[in-house]
Amino acid sequence: METTICAISTAPGVGGIAVIRVSGVNAISICNSVFRPLNTDELLINQPAYTVRYGTVVNEKSEPVDEVLATIFRAPHSFTGEDVVEISCHGSRYIQQQILQLLIHQGCSMAKAGEFTMRAFQNGKMDLSQAEAVADLIASTTSASHRMALNQMRGGFSSELKELRARLLDFVSLVELELDFSEEDVEFADRSKLTELVAEIEEKINALAGSFKVGNVLKTGIPVALVGETNVGKSTLLNLLVKEEKAIVSDIHGTTRDTIEDIVDIDGISFRFIDTAGIRKTKDTIENLGIERTYQKIEQSDIVLWIVDCTQVSEHIEWLTEKIARRATGKKIILVFNKIDKLVDDELEVIEQLFSRFEAERVYISARKNINTDQLRQALINASQIKEIQTGDVIVNNMRHYEALMNALTAIQRVSEGISSGIPADFLSRDIRECMYHLGEITGQISSDEILGNIFGKFCIGK
Amino acid sequence: METTICAISTAPGVGGIAVIRVSGVNAISICNSVFRPLNTDELLINQPAYTVRYGTVVNEKSEPVDEVLATIFRAPHSFTGEDVVEISCHGSRYIQQQILQLLIHQGCSMAKAGEFTMRAFQNGKMDLSQAEAVADLIASTTSASHRMALNQMRGGFSSELKELRARLLDFVSLVELELDFSEEDVEFADRSKLTELVAEIEEKINALAGSFKVGNVLKTGIPVALVGETNVGKSTLLNLLVKEEKAIVSDIHGTTRDTIEDIVDIDGISFRFIDTAGIRKTKDTIENLGIERTYQKIEQSDIVLWIVDCTQVSEHIEWLTEKIARRATGKKIILVFNKIDKLVDDELEVIEQLFSRFEAERVYISARKNINTDQLRQALINASQIKEIQTGDVIVNNMRHYEALMNALTAIQRVSEGISSGIPADFLSRDIRECMYHLGEITGQISSDEILGNIFGKFCIGK
Repeated sequence: METTICAISTAPGVGGIAVIRVSGVNAISICNSVFRPLNTDELLINQPAYTVRYGTVVNEKSEPVDEVLATIFRAPHSFTGEDVVEISCHGSRYIQQQILQLLIHQGCSMAKAGEFTMRAFQNGKMDLSQAEAVADLIASTTSASHRMALNQMRGGFSSELKELRARLLDFVSLVELELDFSEEDVEFADRSKLTELVAEIEEKINALAGSFKVGNVLKTGIPVALVGETNVGKSTLLNLLVKEEKAIVSDIHGTTRDTIEDIVDIDGISFRFIDTAGIRKTKDTIENLGIERTYQKIEQSDIVLWIVDCTQVSEHIEWLTEKIARRATGKKIILVFNKIDKLVDDELEVIEQLFSRFEAERVYISARKNINTDQLRQALINASQIKEIQTGDVIVNNMRHYEALMNALTAIQRVSEGISSGIPADFLSRDIRECMYHLGEITGQISSDEILGNIFGKFCIGK
Repeated sequence: METTICAISTAPGVGGIAVIRVSGVNAISICNSVFRPLNTDELLINQPAYTVRYGTVVNEKSEPVDEVLATIFRAPHSFTGEDVVEISCHGSRYIQQQILQLLIHQGCSMAKAGEFTMRAFQNGKMDLSQAEAVADLIASTTSASHRMALNQMRGGFSSELKELRARLLDFVSLVELELDFSEEDVEFADRSKLTELVAEIEEKINALAGSFKVGNVLKTGIPVALVGETNVGKSTLLNLLVKEEKAIVSDIHGTTRDTIEDIVDIDGISFRFIDTAGIRKTKDTIENLGIERTYQKIEQSDIVLWIVDCTQVSEHIEWLTEKIARRATGKKIILVFNKIDKLVDDELEVIEQLFSRFEAERVYISARKNINTDQLRQALINASQIKEIQTGDVIVNNMRHYEALMNALTAIQRVSEGISSGIPADFLSRDIRECMYHLGEITGQISSDEILGNIFGKFCIGK
């Protein structure tokens, strides 16, 4: 932390302006050495915090490199908690690189990915879960993921966890005091009050862990499998959904590494559409392998769009219903009757009859003619069962947090059982300490270089 | 100019942070309405100029959108000369769009391309040639183009032109005064002093116009044609130069619209490499058309790299020499003896003998083995005859300026002749006015909406 770091903090590429951020003990003096203010009484080293000055960045030969604005923050009142200068320069790649090189010549180091936020964490400006939320906030593409990240960055559940952990610490100290007097059989720690606290923690962890499923799908998109027989219009429908909603075509790899999934935002919720091979009775070994994979994808999805061609009566509905229903237990199924634009006579009635005993929401669309596809979107929103995230809603959306919560839950449940069965204070103490350890992992009160490296390595440079 | 405009000023895409710029009479009050400071005494409307405040951007429902920094500039001491707020937010696309939408709901208009700089021009913060230099500065990719743009942005020749134009105005006023007394045959304007000024202007314009060739090649790259017989290794050499220097592969269309040219920066100078069809004696009509195009490209280039295979004695050297030399009059030719890694016995001597009477710099390389290619690069630098641009060097690199200068030159030459031949004051006045008009076009003292639209339409949004 002795070093002063610098990086371009704005998006890479050419823009009107770019911002170079410098943080560390020498941030102001280093920037001062390359900055010529308009008036000599405006040297950066003499400027108060929270002020911005116009001037010229000059190189070692005192030649001008660019005209810039420099903003001063003084420790500890900055993002990182250190002295910080933000240089706002013209947005050419050349200028950005030149200024970075100058700063490095003057003694700065290039910031590693996430290093500004890591310093903010290490200087106590935010806890670990808040720091993680910064990365989520930058990556957020929908109102739901944005709201979740912002809530978490603004404190979210971590202040609550810290408070519960502090209360556990009080108890464990008393329990451990009992160990010193173990032969006298005293109880410093009021077991009934401890039981109350344990119940409170258990309830809190259960609520948080319960929010993880929602948080996770909001972050990665709700998996929706498009299934059906061959030639029912799956690809047409997928293209329509993807095109209309300006999908983020992504290459998230599923368990089957060949899957390319399309993430589409509908009304602020991300859906991850998974195309599948058409299901039919066949003796072709290769094709059956593909169909087997379709079944796996149904199992991995939360919502199943079962697409049916209204213009062709399938002979295999019973067989197909059995195949799909078996894998889709507990999933939301939407029956999509496609090609209603080509409907003849009473075909639909015949086909609906085939599905009469099958319970699922039904929508009637034409993917090719874009008929009723808004109803399909609404059906997807309803099936997602996601209520709008409110400011202040606390949702866990991070696998690391979820694992720590589950470990803390196991430990606190052991504490609870231990109190009931009156286990010795040293066992009780160990279980309480374990719960505290896992709660501390979330907020970063307990952390290792490895954990920090994992977390901040995923950040972008400059943040 | 009554409107308040807003735009994202940083590069498009996701970054650690992004900057949204707001300019206009209501900039501070609009931003104030969406900004909740940490302390209520830090409302944006109450902040002094050049200060930055931390706070939360909130939407119409007072829900937080992001935690941001807002920097205040007050008219006329800002880039645009108006009140300006720069909001530095987290760099997700979602947040950038949300804040823009909020500002627009509060009464901002989306800024058009270059509108901030156009306002700076219209508010007298910079003249037109300085405004144009802002776009050049952002687009600059080499030290030479960067230096040129920066010199021009910092005043460059425009203050000088303005001063010369003002002196012409003094004279033309006196000349026009003579018209009121035309029957009395008086001379208010001292013809010998006018002659001095005219000579000074002519000299200045000539110098500036002369710098245009350098300025233009520095901006668009020095055109270098790679020519030679078939299979001498042109493509291998081009690939090597392009790959090693991280070329900007561009699709600048030449007069032959099929040409794709590679721009490569070597030691801060841009070279625009033009590949050509191999030259050989052939009766194939199509191939001869291609060879004809090769000759055109030689004529369009400044430097000709003539590539010769050292391992194969060509029978047609004399013919080829005549073909190339005829088109390359006045160009720098570099003879590149390629494939020296495959040299056998005294082949090279034989081949050199063939060129003995041909005057050109010679380099001996292997493009495939990357031997001596640094010498080739040095030969290119030498051939470019471009001295390093110094701070303060005034170079015209803009076709619009060049045309205006040429028009001003024609007019001032007529003035000069008019004084010698003693033409009537009304003709003299008209010529002086014409010269003033064209000088004023450069600095923007004379401008039309159409010209401004052309210039600023090429800017990026947010600048």
